[in-house]
Amino acid sequence: MDTRRTEAFSDGVFAVAITVLVFGLLPIGGGADVTHELLRSWPRYIAYVVSFLTIGIMWLNHHALIAQLREVNRPLLIMNLLLLMGVVAVPWPTTLVADHLTGPAIGGGRASTVTYGLVLLWIATAYSIMWVYIGRRAAQVAHLADRPPERLKTLRFMAGLGGYAIAAIVSFFSPGVVMTIYGLIAVYYFFEHVPSPASREKVAGGDVVPDLPAAEPGVVSEP
Amino acid sequence: MDTRRTEAFSDGVFAVAITVLVFGLLPIGGGADVTHELLRSWPRYIAYVVSFLTIGIMWLNHHALIAQLREVNRPLLIMNLLLLMGVVAVPWPTTLVADHLTGPAIGGGRASTVTYGLVLLWIATAYSIMWVYIGRRAAQVAHLADRPPERLKTLRFMAGLGGYAIAAIVSFFSPGVVMTIYGLIAVYYFFEHVPSPASREKVAGGDVVPDLPAAEPGVVSEP
Amino acid sequence: MDTRRTEAFSDGVFAVAITVLVFGLLPIGGGADVTHELLRSWPRYIAYVVSFLTIGIMWLNHHALIAQLREVNRPLLIMNLLLLMGVVAVPWPTTLVADHLTGPAIGGGRASTVTYGLVLLWIATAYSIMWVYIGRRAAQVAHLADRPPERLKTLRFMAGLGGYAIAAIVSFFSPGVVMTIYGLIAVYYFFEHVPSPASREKVAGGDVVPDLPAAEPGVVSEP
Amino acid sequence: MDTRRTEAFSDGVFAVAITVLVFGLLPIGGGADVTHELLRSWPRYIAYVVSFLTIGIMWLNHHALIAQLREVNRPLLIMNLLLLMGVVAVPWPTTLVADHLTGPAIGGGRASTVTYGLVLLWIATAYSIMWVYIGRRAAQVAHLADRPPERLKTLRFMAGLGGYAIAAIVSFFSPGVVMTIYGLIAVYYFFEHVPSPASREKVAGGDVVPDLPAAEPGVVSEP
Repeated sequence: MDTRRTEAFSDGVFAVAITVLVFGLLPIGGGADVTHELLRSWPRYIAYVVSFLTIGIMWLNHHALIAQLREVNRPLLIMNLLLLMGVVAVPWPTTLVADHLTGPAIGGGRASTVTYGLVLLWIATAYSIMWVYIGRRAAQVAHLADRPPERLKTLRFMAGLGGYAIAAIVSFFSPGVVMTIYGLIAVYYFFEHVPSPASREKVAGGDVVPDLPAAEPGVVSEP
Repeated sequence: MDTRRTEAFSDGVFAVAITVLVFGLLPIGGGADVTHELLRSWPRYIAYVVSFLTIGIMWLNHHALIAQLREVNRPLLIMNLLLLMGVVAVPWPTTLVADHLTGPAIGGGRASTVTYGLVLLWIATAYSIMWVYIGRRAAQVAHLADRPPERLKTLRFMAGLGGYAIAAIVSFFSPGVVMTIYGLIAVYYFFEHVPSPASREKVAGGDVVPDLPAAEPGVVSEP
Repeated sequence: MDTRRTEAFSDGVFAVAITVLVFGLLPIGGGADVTHELLRSWPRYIAYVVSFLTIGIMWLNHHALIAQLREVNRPLLIMNLLLLMGVVAVPWPTTLVADHLTGPAIGGGRASTVTYGLVLLWIATAYSIMWVYIGRRAAQVAHLADRPPERLKTLRFMAGLGGYAIAAIVSFFSPGVVMTIYGLIAVYYFFEHVPSPASREKVAGGDVVPDLPAAEPGVVSEP
Repeated sequence: MDTRRTEAFSDGVFAVAITVLVFGLLPIGGGADVTHELLRSWPRYIAYVVSFLTIGIMWLNHHALIAQLREVNRPLLIMNLLLLMGVVAVPWPTTLVADHLTGPAIGGGRASTVTYGLVLLWIATAYSIMWVYIGRRAAQVAHLADRPPERLKTLRFMAGLGGYAIAAIVSFFSPGVVMTIYGLIAVYYFFEHVPSPASREKVAGGDVVPDLPAAEPGVVSEP
């Protein structure tokens, strides 16, 4: 299957999943004092911002990953579905965290942030599997645009995976601060991202407007 | 109508329908013990995974079906709408199954999985009608890209339809296990899929980057 | 603004609005007898099917209308927004009808179907205004692809508008059957549609694969 | 990253966010008199219309802003995410306003419209930062299509930002009328918009169908 359709479908799923996050903000208790209720709901806002940045930056990296390919085969499509299965689920633990971070139940905050961490760990794992798979197949199938991801880049990318694993463990002990870690990992992934073909081009040559067939390998199959 | 717009609209509907599945995960009872509540909700997770894979793989096959065409006529558009009518409805029986699979009411689980089966049967029927219609019209209108779907392929494709019918009947007797069957049918359809033009090309010739006008017949009408 | 972006945004809105209809199916009362509850909910299914076909066929005609243009100016963009404002609202009266058609309150059914009719009347009016505007501007701005919509076609198109007006009045007296009228209008609009450029081309010449610059005027501005 | 993908993702987010507004219309109290309930809900309709126009016109201006670029760099992508974070949140204060504008609690209306104003202020601020950033970078990176936005245009654009700031303050004193101001700002932004490349072209030359490479700089990177 050509990458254009896979991108279009994935873009749609990312766009809807990120918008569904607003439902975590919506329910306000029917109390008379709306101002108090709104101020008291600060965990909702934190959960919204962290999840929004996380999904948004995942979208950036997802694009960069798919853009390296000319064609998407069946195994990659199923990996992509498993990745999206995690992305779509994000609003669920986000709502859990929003509802239980400051709730009366001690176990509530912990169970919520652990669930949150497990969903992000799922996504990071699916990413890493796709990353490794693409790297391994590069030589064999020659589908990869120009060159395999470098080993160092892979190590750094995996560091984020480790970050999610550590955060998932930390959340057992301190549910209140682990959300900060998730926010920081989002920022980390923003800088330590999969190099987009365009930016790699910029490093290799000096031209800002890239030479198209090389710079956008994902769309060369369009006439 | 050109296939590009039909694909774009259908992709959007598939992407939103698959994301709406997260609403089946969202509602958690207001009980104090969130951990217990989350562990007790395992039917939600099963329903989510099975429905996600089902819609995801339906999207794959839908793409492969549409990609065989140069143009979509009015009868095909109405068939496509009837197909999407079933796809959009999937989150409804998914929520039913999630809520009633382990509920106290014996009838609840059965009614839910039967409803689930009927919706999937509707979708599979709409698919099969589109498949047969495209095959029959192939010779007459010469819209079909290169060749009509082979008879054997059609038989195998219909087997999935039979699977949904059998599952719908089984769900009257054993609501608890029929979800496994639906999951297996999704896996079956993943392998026994409509051949995508690109993959057929790969079989015919040996070139990985396909010859475009033949390989992407759905987009040849774009300059 | 080029039509491509307007189409993409409108397609997205149509796709999400049609998928939101599933929320009209979702809430099931917590009664023990799920089977009885599901059978008793038949107004939900009718409302879902009628609204799905209505939005789906509106999408078809919207595409055919926009496809006649090379470029969308500011007045058309605001008309399009007003049209979409009605389309997005459709799930609201759909849920009203689903909840109140067989409810105990006599006024409930009537108020619901009247609201339903008013929303559809809004959409049909916005369509008609766009239709007339495009027809009038055709000679002046010369943006129109090949020829203005014929007068007879316009009259027939307006008939649907009249149908919605009549249905809105009928719904004051017989809320139970007016949904059938809405379904029939959807079917009417399916056949009495805005002629798509491609199908017109087919009538004019004999070639199935249309001559592109004339047949897809909306995308000629893409290189 | 090329602008095409950024546009596609942003379009999706705008389309879903505008459609989610319908959830502000949905919940109707279970009272027997549906007609009375529907008439009493007029603040819902005002909130729906104002928010719909606001998001719709933001989409127009977002497109015009992005269309000026050939390529989107990382800082712009994060600005865009922050902008979308505000857009996605709009249905939240919309529902607040719909629920509390005529509610018994005096503080409810004020808290709701203030929240509404803060969200719009966030969006307007993100827009302005993007606008200034693009203007400043124009000379340096030479990514800008043809010429930097003029100073006067910038001043007028900023006036809208000031409008949101003033409205946010006004909403502390008169929650009932401030919604009118938000509606008027939407209308203001409709006319005082970012000039789209196509319309600027029309001013410069006399040709209605624009010279493509100059007129659609955002898509020139597509072969």
